[in-house]
Amino acid sequence: MAITVVGSVAYDSIETPAGRRERCLGGAATYFSLAASFFTDVRVIAVVGEDFGPEQEAVFNARKIDTRGIERAAGKSFFWEGSYLDNLNEAKTHITDLNVFASFNPKIPDAYRDSEFLFLANIDPVLQRRVRDAMPQAKLVAGDTMNYWIKDHRPALLEVLKGLDVLLINDTETKMLAGNNNLVQAARAVLAMGPKALVVKHGEYGATLFSGTAAASAPPSLRSGASAEERVAIGMNPFRAPALPLEEVVDPTGAGDSFAGGFFGYLASQPEVTPAAFRRAMFYGGVMGSFACERFGTERLQQLSHKEIDERFNLFRELTHLD
Amino acid sequence: MAITVVGSVAYDSIETPAGRRERCLGGAATYFSLAASFFTDVRVIAVVGEDFGPEQEAVFNARKIDTRGIERAAGKSFFWEGSYLDNLNEAKTHITDLNVFASFNPKIPDAYRDSEFLFLANIDPVLQRRVRDAMPQAKLVAGDTMNYWIKDHRPALLEVLKGLDVLLINDTETKMLAGNNNLVQAARAVLAMGPKALVVKHGEYGATLFSGTAAASAPPSLRSGASAEERVAIGMNPFRAPALPLEEVVDPTGAGDSFAGGFFGYLASQPEVTPAAFRRAMFYGGVMGSFACERFGTERLQQLSHKEIDERFNLFRELTHLD
Repeated sequence: MAITVVGSVAYDSIETPAGRRERCLGGAATYFSLAASFFTDVRVIAVVGEDFGPEQEAVFNARKIDTRGIERAAGKSFFWEGSYLDNLNEAKTHITDLNVFASFNPKIPDAYRDSEFLFLANIDPVLQRRVRDAMPQAKLVAGDTMNYWIKDHRPALLEVLKGLDVLLINDTETKMLAGNNNLVQAARAVLAMGPKALVVKHGEYGATLFSGTAAASAPPSLRSGASAEERVAIGMNPFRAPALPLEEVVDPTGAGDSFAGGFFGYLASQPEVTPAAFRRAMFYGGVMGSFACERFGTERLQQLSHKEIDERFNLFRELTHLD
Repeated sequence: MAITVVGSVAYDSIETPAGRRERCLGGAATYFSLAASFFTDVRVIAVVGEDFGPEQEAVFNARKIDTRGIERAAGKSFFWEGSYLDNLNEAKTHITDLNVFASFNPKIPDAYRDSEFLFLANIDPVLQRRVRDAMPQAKLVAGDTMNYWIKDHRPALLEVLKGLDVLLINDTETKMLAGNNNLVQAARAVLAMGPKALVVKHGEYGATLFSGTAAASAPPSLRSGASAEERVAIGMNPFRAPALPLEEVVDPTGAGDSFAGGFFGYLASQPEVTPAAFRRAMFYGGVMGSFACERFGTERLQQLSHKEIDERFNLFRELTHLD
């Protein structure tokens, strides 16, 4: 089933211990849609400036991604410059020029309206909600956010969370959103805000899926020390997917968005969204995130083959399975 | 098969967000032997002072741990005081009184000499090597170390590493030992120092096993971007075991030693040390480490049942396995 994604399409200048790239194609919606395009049809809603040309367009076309929802506006595209010289796990932002993105008002092409899957990438929660409300036919809605929205736009964000099936954020964001430094307690609190499932991304250590409707109502007696059955009974059903130990992380930019693309793309490709499909989706998320890190920008995702994805999925299984 | 462990038996005063305990029984050899005792016979070599009484002795006796190698010396036992108030992942040390441990010269009871498994807990590498040399019958030798020995006693430590089958250390120690900030490259460098396998402990994110004799000689072409088959062919055979997402970490002291005890204890209980046994041992390590965190000191390990261990092992499987 088709996915519509709303988010940024941007230019990034990136410096890592492996080198430097100027103005490569980036943005959350770009990484997400490239990763998801290996699993299902993807449609993008974004805004770009006059600097977005045929070369960039071709990257989407090569993966059969629908770009009719990418609006061209007068001015320049969103530009980000950052580095990872001290710490590959955390970008240091040097420049953020919103440019045409500052007045982004998502417009949804009629051809997108039958999308059953909707991904709200990390943008202003007011816009996330507007797109969600405009696409009531979407059966499964997932989204991302970041510290800025959690800290300074909490009421709008909480409205978005109420309508989400899956929220994908990292450890720090989870703890910040919940105001709780214990990951399990924080996950429980976030699930009580609305999302039916929470994917917490741990960077090089993988990701954990928390889900279950009983999450918000676990009795206090079911704390640590509870037996295995009791823990399972609390309904959080945690599932941990690994990240691949990589010989060289060339550029971690977009790894989280690529994870989301692999995760949600795989789910959308399945006849039914079952717990087993969710688990495999976590692995495909890790698979696509690991590829994204291997080259600068979207280079690796652009060159990827289905065979490589299958091989790496099997590698993830070997990496984690006892038998 | 029996394990002999050499290491510290100590008193710890511990403060965590969950509370404070004064002078509880601790030390690497204590946590290790309690955890390993659920899987096989364990024999301890250590030194304690006159403050080590029948109450402490009873903790070992209750788990049928052989304490004939625990020497009683004039003076006080090793004492450590630390807190985890800001960060549950890293202890802040307030006091380290070596006391009788300062002049520890391990003596090996004759009854221990047929031990086929030997664990060298985190002590002076000169002593680790002395014990290793004095027990040539040991078929599988594992060990731990810490930043202090890596930085200031490197030549002695490198001698120990040459004779190790398995080294168990954390991320920071691995990178420090190798002088390399990439975990995979660092693991490869550490394996080249002698150990046949390396277990890198990631705290709340679990642990990774690296092994394989080809580890030191991977051609440079087999870097990131290599296909799945090529990656497997480099011989590092990584395996990732999870940690249990815990509702409450009461006290992380001894979690790493308990991991080592579960890991090595399980290996020693198996008829053969196969790659499959290594994988299950990683899970049992995580299982015992997670229990250790649930109460102060060794409280949880003392109360544990085999049924609880089995249940948690199954929980670890559910936490990670696709099917």
